Amino acid sequence: MGRFPLLAPFARCLPAPLGAELQQPQAPPRPAPARPPEAPGPGRGGAAVMELGQMSLSFSRLRMFPFFDTAHYLASVLALKEQRGAVEVSRQSPVACWFSAMLYCFGGSVLSSLMLAEPPIGFLTNSTNIFLASSVWYLVFYCPHDIVYRCFSFLPLRLMVAGMKEVTRTWKITAGITHANSHYKNAWFVMVAVGWARGAGGGLISNFEQLVRGVWKPESNELLKMSYPVKVTLIGAVLFTLQHIQTLPIARHNLMFLYTIFLVVTKVTMMLTQCAVSPFAPLEAVLGCMFFGWQQTPSKVKGEARVSSNGASSVSDHSVGEASENIKKKQAKKTE
Amino acid sequence: MGRFPLLAPFARCLPAPLGAELQQPQAPPRPAPARPPEAPGPGRGGAAVMELGQMSLSFSRLRMFPFFDTAHYLASVLALKEQRGAVEVSRQSPVACWFSAMLYCFGGSVLSSLMLAEPPIGFLTNSTNIFLASSVWYLVFYCPHDIVYRCFSFLPLRLMVAGMKEVTRTWKITAGITHANSHYKNAWFVMVAVGWARGAGGGLISNFEQLVRGVWKPESNELLKMSYPVKVTLIGAVLFTLQHIQTLPIARHNLMFLYTIFLVVTKVTMMLTQCAVSPFAPLEAVLGCMFFGWQQTPSKVKGEARVSSNGASSVSDHSVGEASENIKKKQAKKTE
Amino acid sequence: MGRFPLLAPFARCLPAPLGAELQQPQAPPRPAPARPPEAPGPGRGGAAVMELGQMSLSFSRLRMFPFFDTAHYLASVLALKEQRGAVEVSRQSPVACWFSAMLYCFGGSVLSSLMLAEPPIGFLTNSTNIFLASSVWYLVFYCPHDIVYRCFSFLPLRLMVAGMKEVTRTWKITAGITHANSHYKNAWFVMVAVGWARGAGGGLISNFEQLVRGVWKPESNELLKMSYPVKVTLIGAVLFTLQHIQTLPIARHNLMFLYTIFLVVTKVTMMLTQCAVSPFAPLEAVLGCMFFGWQQTPSKVKGEARVSSNGASSVSDHSVGEASENIKKKQAKKTE
Repeated sequence: MGRFPLLAPFARCLPAPLGAELQQPQAPPRPAPARPPEAPGPGRGGAAVMELGQMSLSFSRLRMFPFFDTAHYLASVLALKEQRGAVEVSRQSPVACWFSAMLYCFGGSVLSSLMLAEPPIGFLTNSTNIFLASSVWYLVFYCPHDIVYRCFSFLPLRLMVAGMKEVTRTWKITAGITHANSHYKNAWFVMVAVGWARGAGGGLISNFEQLVRGVWKPESNELLKMSYPVKVTLIGAVLFTLQHIQTLPIARHNLMFLYTIFLVVTKVTMMLTQCAVSPFAPLEAVLGCMFFGWQQTPSKVKGEARVSSNGASSVSDHSVGEASENIKKKQAKKTE
Repeated sequence: MGRFPLLAPFARCLPAPLGAELQQPQAPPRPAPARPPEAPGPGRGGAAVMELGQMSLSFSRLRMFPFFDTAHYLASVLALKEQRGAVEVSRQSPVACWFSAMLYCFGGSVLSSLMLAEPPIGFLTNSTNIFLASSVWYLVFYCPHDIVYRCFSFLPLRLMVAGMKEVTRTWKITAGITHANSHYKNAWFVMVAVGWARGAGGGLISNFEQLVRGVWKPESNELLKMSYPVKVTLIGAVLFTLQHIQTLPIARHNLMFLYTIFLVVTKVTMMLTQCAVSPFAPLEAVLGCMFFGWQQTPSKVKGEARVSSNGASSVSDHSVGEASENIKKKQAKKTE
Repeated sequence: MGRFPLLAPFARCLPAPLGAELQQPQAPPRPAPARPPEAPGPGRGGAAVMELGQMSLSFSRLRMFPFFDTAHYLASVLALKEQRGAVEVSRQSPVACWFSAMLYCFGGSVLSSLMLAEPPIGFLTNSTNIFLASSVWYLVFYCPHDIVYRCFSFLPLRLMVAGMKEVTRTWKITAGITHANSHYKNAWFVMVAVGWARGAGGGLISNFEQLVRGVWKPESNELLKMSYPVKVTLIGAVLFTLQHIQTLPIARHNLMFLYTIFLVVTKVTMMLTQCAVSPFAPLEAVLGCMFFGWQQTPSKVKGEARVSSNGASSVSDHSVGEASENIKKKQAKKTE
């Protein structure tokens, strides 16, 4: 069961090499091709690197349909059900609830289609996926005694679903970048934008998804206060774009493997520790101080040695920003 | 004057057979082709069916321009003028008022174009229709002494205009489905969506139409609380799509005829009786209980014999839903 | 330095004839081709007209990149920075601030692309312009001690930037009209709409630009209460469309020249006099009375001699409209 214990049940839907690996976890390593003794050879470490490369190649050929897609729909619809007011909407208007769920599940596709002037309802042409997502939606919202929802509220199941959903994110980002590149050759701003939109679409259009449910929160959006998934998708889109234009010296399948591992590990860790602090917070603090915080802390230009105090000042920047935002909101309320 | 007394003045714009029928209502029935006496023949009932089929075929060739289109513009602009605040907007900014009126008149075209990634301003290429709609808008809003508006507030005229507008709905739904099918072969989710959007576009984009007039009501939209026209258009889009993929064993022109008759009769009845209850309410109650109400009434799974009590419980479901919605709104207000 | 003293530093980026003219302002006029003495010839006035024509032709070949484009970005970002709450947003979320700035700079491109079903992110393909606009955004918002912003708050610099930005407006309108014409032959409603959108895009989508910054003002939009730039762009779009379909008997380059002069002069005058009254106010008053104000002032139909009183009544119309709008808002607040 070595590398992917959670994936074992799905070995059938995996490409042959990885599937075989999963089903025969204790199989002896394949005999290395005979090598002339005079060459130093890659040695034990080199063999491990080669095997890792092989594994990441197999991993990059993983098919998303049906299991990973289902996990994505499940995680999305569960997230929708936990929104305030969503259950009332599901009782009041199943149509609005269904449409909202589809925006959660296919938001990335809708947004990236809009960006590239393709039919935003293109996702409706894939009837199988629509049926799958609709079934998930129906079971989560309307199952008698709420069995499905309660079942997937069980932490280990929830972790598995969340982890599998993160795997689909990598696939979406790379698909978005490839698709953008087929429209515009080497327009890397477009590639980043479409990869980001495809990977984090549900979040980016959340204002309009909420509007379907009769909720309108103009004071918050994912650009103004990025959530962790939106941030990490942006970073992923930048990395894969750099890889695509061959600025990043790494093979695509290796990057996919490493990025997915990072996604899954951080997601599972954040869920287990109930921690909402982004792993990028220190990096953001440093970058924010270097590039955007100059006005707040003019003492910063004296030197770069005070990084730790910079970090602290960045935090205070944030609280200042939030305080000023609160003041702004109050003013806005008074003027309304 | 037999079948379509209201259509008689427009006989000129009708296709030949129907036009002739309307102008010579008392003409003797055409002699049936000689039939060998040994065949049983369709008999009196069969002849009536054939004649009905002929009539519905002629009906399905009816041209919408100019009279039915004008009626649609008239009904739409009258509905706009009756919106709260619309008259103030017409005085304050004729441009916003005109744009709002165009969204009322061409909303279906705009929405379906957006869905299929075609230019949403495509409707502007048809200068004749734009002039027609603009003239109607101008006369309804700015005519001295409000003559045109008062004239069409006269109930019989209003009924005629509303009935003719409903006829255009059928044409729009079928045009939308045909158009969607030319983009995606047999993608029937897309066909339903585009047919619905084309037929009920003005309603579906009402949030954004209101925004043009400076009104914003996020708590209500046509998905959250469907109005009767939007519902009946959705049902029509489903029926015509089923007919298109040959699941529904009925000829297209017959379905058009029957659906239009249903639309016109229910619309006129609802206007005459001032009744806002949808004719689908019982059906919705039953479906809601069967598919979406299980959580509320767990006693339902015991048997299907208690449909009437289910209906009642569904109504109480609704009031529960509304009550909870009110509570939600109050909470939202407090938190704002 | 004769005609364009402000343009002299940019002579390098001008087309040859105009560049030469700017660099050698005192050069003797080119010798006119020998003309047979029996022809009357254009004379002194005719020569001036010809020279003006030549100058306007050279002017119409002016390239916008890089100086005028930079001025446009600078004026747009300065305007953004002066919006209430923009500085807080720039501290809180540089991404939202950057996106907002891009909508200010490329709003016309985004809106006209949406209208013609072209990729709205098409502007991202032009990396050079994106870098230019981003640099301007960065310098204006995050420059230490706010040097750049303070520098361009100096009135003469500000006037120059504003004037140069107005020059780009003409170029955008004509580009939009040409582009629309390449999609739809002679659909002049479309030409006006796309020209207007391209020239005044930032204003027309201001509601959605504000939403990026967490601000939502549904009660105001540029259709409901047009600002002067939006109005003058609409007039320009109509004029250039009429010229394009050869209804207006004037050469394109002459119209470009005259319209730009008008734009720059009115803009600079309005900035110098701090006057917010549109130069079109009297024209609007007359048109409003003739076409839209009849209901308010029935005495108007008696004759056309009372234009001045009409103007006054139109003003009172406006205040009535505003009063009723205020009442409407109060009602809306109560009902919420």
